[in-house]
Amino acid sequence: MTARHRLIYLPLGGAGEIGMNCYVYGYGPEGEERLIVVDIGVAFPDMDGQPGVDLILPDIAWLAERRDRIDGIFITHAHEDHVGSLGHLWGALRAPVYCRRFTAIHAMRKMEEQGHPPETVQVVAPYPATVTAGPFTVSFAPISHSIPESSALLIDTPDGRVVHSGDFKIDRDPVVGEPFDDAMWAEIAKDGVRAYICDSTNVFSRHPGRSESQLPEPITELIRGARGLVVATTFASNVARLKTLADAAVAAGRTVCLMGRAMKRMTAAAVEAGVLTDFPATVTPEDATEIPRENLMLLVTGSQGERRAASAALSRGSYLGHELGEGDMFLFSSKTIPGNEVSVARIKNALAEKGVDVVDDQAGFYHVSGHANRPDLEAMHEVLKPQVLIPNHGEYRHLREHARLGLSKGMTGIVAPNGSMVEISGNAPGVVEYLEVGKTYLDGIAQIGAYDGIIRDRMKLALNGLVLVSLIVDEDDALMEDSMVALRGLPERASNGADLVALIEDDIAAALARMDAKTAADDDKIAEAIKRVVRQTCVSEIGKKPEVTTLVSRLIAD
Amino acid sequence: MTARHRLIYLPLGGAGEIGMNCYVYGYGPEGEERLIVVDIGVAFPDMDGQPGVDLILPDIAWLAERRDRIDGIFITHAHEDHVGSLGHLWGALRAPVYCRRFTAIHAMRKMEEQGHPPETVQVVAPYPATVTAGPFTVSFAPISHSIPESSALLIDTPDGRVVHSGDFKIDRDPVVGEPFDDAMWAEIAKDGVRAYICDSTNVFSRHPGRSESQLPEPITELIRGARGLVVATTFASNVARLKTLADAAVAAGRTVCLMGRAMKRMTAAAVEAGVLTDFPATVTPEDATEIPRENLMLLVTGSQGERRAASAALSRGSYLGHELGEGDMFLFSSKTIPGNEVSVARIKNALAEKGVDVVDDQAGFYHVSGHANRPDLEAMHEVLKPQVLIPNHGEYRHLREHARLGLSKGMTGIVAPNGSMVEISGNAPGVVEYLEVGKTYLDGIAQIGAYDGIIRDRMKLALNGLVLVSLIVDEDDALMEDSMVALRGLPERASNGADLVALIEDDIAAALARMDAKTAADDDKIAEAIKRVVRQTCVSEIGKKPEVTTLVSRLIAD
Repeated sequence: MTARHRLIYLPLGGAGEIGMNCYVYGYGPEGEERLIVVDIGVAFPDMDGQPGVDLILPDIAWLAERRDRIDGIFITHAHEDHVGSLGHLWGALRAPVYCRRFTAIHAMRKMEEQGHPPETVQVVAPYPATVTAGPFTVSFAPISHSIPESSALLIDTPDGRVVHSGDFKIDRDPVVGEPFDDAMWAEIAKDGVRAYICDSTNVFSRHPGRSESQLPEPITELIRGARGLVVATTFASNVARLKTLADAAVAAGRTVCLMGRAMKRMTAAAVEAGVLTDFPATVTPEDATEIPRENLMLLVTGSQGERRAASAALSRGSYLGHELGEGDMFLFSSKTIPGNEVSVARIKNALAEKGVDVVDDQAGFYHVSGHANRPDLEAMHEVLKPQVLIPNHGEYRHLREHARLGLSKGMTGIVAPNGSMVEISGNAPGVVEYLEVGKTYLDGIAQIGAYDGIIRDRMKLALNGLVLVSLIVDEDDALMEDSMVALRGLPERASNGADLVALIEDDIAAALARMDAKTAADDDKIAEAIKRVVRQTCVSEIGKKPEVTTLVSRLIAD
Repeated sequence: MTARHRLIYLPLGGAGEIGMNCYVYGYGPEGEERLIVVDIGVAFPDMDGQPGVDLILPDIAWLAERRDRIDGIFITHAHEDHVGSLGHLWGALRAPVYCRRFTAIHAMRKMEEQGHPPETVQVVAPYPATVTAGPFTVSFAPISHSIPESSALLIDTPDGRVVHSGDFKIDRDPVVGEPFDDAMWAEIAKDGVRAYICDSTNVFSRHPGRSESQLPEPITELIRGARGLVVATTFASNVARLKTLADAAVAAGRTVCLMGRAMKRMTAAAVEAGVLTDFPATVTPEDATEIPRENLMLLVTGSQGERRAASAALSRGSYLGHELGEGDMFLFSSKTIPGNEVSVARIKNALAEKGVDVVDDQAGFYHVSGHANRPDLEAMHEVLKPQVLIPNHGEYRHLREHARLGLSKGMTGIVAPNGSMVEISGNAPGVVEYLEVGKTYLDGIAQIGAYDGIIRDRMKLALNGLVLVSLIVDEDDALMEDSMVALRGLPERASNGADLVALIEDDIAAALARMDAKTAADDDKIAEAIKRVVRQTCVSEIGKKPEVTTLVSRLIAD
């Protein structure tokens, strides 16, 4: 008798948060399922939560332990939150990588950068072409988003068809790339869909989504009305938007100049992949300095306020020979991602200080979202009629709302945040197990766990400041009363104006003088005692309880 | 011949930023003007910019140097960004404080908390009553905002009337407090207004502002539809909103329980000041545990996601005997202030995980702003017809847009960010001087300057981690090769698994062995050399360049 086979789904990132997408599907006998990975993205750290960290990667410990059971890694599209971890984590998985051509260009670069063989990345043609990976037959179904060649995955299994939506919107005229194909989706749905794992980002947006094709007219009109230099920013990966903006500039009698590494890389990749065939001719930033301001548009990186991108550089001063001023216009053809509001406002204010007219999407004319709003989610539910709906790509509240929406339409809606193993097959699909799933921080070249305490220690230093104490125990095991004290991140003067280091050194000397021999014999006990003394002094002198690190050196008799 | 007198305006905080309002008006011979201060607020620090700091205060060095010329401190209303610095900074100014009664209750408490005489705060009746302060005659003109007894200031000077708007909106039915009084404002304007210094926060909001009176109906309807416990949060100081929410609860058959210190303090102050006369009876959190969930509404603090407030506590688990779950509803009757989005989302997600239905103002039914939108600003311009318009209470982009709006209507619009001294009088009103104005951080009990380097040092520690090194120079002026090394905020293991402290100690020993006598004789040179070695080791072993602090102890021969 063979063991019962089952079809499982396990999100390791991207469910219960927006970003760092990483999902696992499995089919086979319980505990021996063959596995595929869908997406392997990053999230971006911030000072508030992960100071000093370079990237946040999914915790793939569970997958790495089952490496021999992985039949493939499938990447839905080239956004960083879907492919950004590939280079950093592939070494622990070592499975073939499948994606469409535009995505592959980025995936291969990420592999190469980390010293992995780029030929592991295999370019797959879209639906109806398929890839067989263990018990799974996978097809990339084109659907529009905000980057070329985004795809849903059709994952056929012995227990039925699973549709993994990827990031998507319904756009029947997306400017660049494949329009939404009603006939294709009807065909995909016609034999029944067991489960739909679906993007939830915009579930709270109740109006129907808008098409990229609604933008050229107002943007062209806006640029036509500009007197001086025009600068426009958006995500470099939004190739359709780049084309919308560039075409509008040309229609308004302007030459386009791309600025920022990502702009050039993305347009080059789009041309190489054959998805961008008629982008207007551009000039280099250097040549652009020869063009009159009223005939030029700069298309620049940094719509999210990134400090090192072109937008920020232009807001600070001259950049690559271009400087903004009175009469110029700066267009944010973008949405500000939650958490980036302050950085974006900083740039807008710096531009306003230069006299630049800043235009953003507050009025709703110059940007459309790349994600399906609630009515479009409902439309997809209606087309696919899945038995099971598992919301992903959303914070917990998005997942819950989306599952409720599904339930209200008669589907089995399952809320499955990161670490929830869902059994999709069987009579009662639902969460069968909760795994402890953390996050991994890329910190320099080290990968550290989110709960290792290292980042918490950095935050303590930042919040409390640090007092360093160096003590010496002499050859006779006696503590020398002269300590060395240094401060980091603390004021040099007490609130009464006295020298804080001197006050601390005095109090330490007094404490050492009355320290008993038992304490003095134990470095940890000395450090504990010193910490108490230093904190007491600091609380009364500056009103703060700092971190304290004490180094005890013991002299050894010759 | 007497020197020419002039009327000046100098923002020290709140112009070029939202928060920390502090404005100075002066009248008299140049350099000898008599001064009044309008508002003395705080801004709130965050991990991203001011880790560990308790409050951000305006830099009042300029005022403190001219203390003998200050004739009064006028507080427009009791919001923290207008009165929060009073206790911390009054000691450097020592002038009488004037405000209306509700504001005075808070101002006196702030004085007392910092050991200053609360009787310095004088309660002033509203317009047409006046206060004389040196050459100024000042009157508090009631106008609605989102806290009781908000007032514009009418500042009469020998060079004409200045109207300082304070924070305001036009609300003819504000639920609590004085409705907008068209007749009063016509009277105020009738003899001409020299300058209008005006709130700019909502200058980009193009729809007319809405009245508090539009909220009771939808909120009551919402609460009527709730099955389980209802929790509502808003700013505790928004006493009108508290009443709207409490009345709606009662109308829906629920008893109200206030939770969070600020809730109780604000309602008590509003009752004491006589502005809140018919607030429904409330029960204590303890008594509320006896009331069936479907008959109870908790009115709680923490609408901005503050970690220690009641909203956050309820999202984490049981709080004061109350725990939320499936079927309960949580209403955010508030706007999320930019920068707080992530904290607020954290609470919403935690509540969603408990099965609570979270309702916020996304649909526009459950909150109205306390600030004038663009059409309302234009209406005030029209009523007052000022010769000079100086936008304040806004980031730079708000000030610029508001000044342009004024210019387009024929006023002299002046953009004056913090530190710009404006001459209001004379034939060509405008900025006459730029002062270097910083910010002061309250850090524990110490006041430190924003540019003192202390906070920058904390941020470096948080971003880079720290290596501590202790070295000993023996009695013969020879460096002992054994160093002590400790790490803070760094991984213990190099990327190859080796012990990082041991690697660093080895490299230091090697460096000390080859150190020349000249370097070894100078503690600073030793520290420089050690920093280089430690950074080299860390860059190659963990890919990070940490902060390094070296303590050199010199043994002295007996």
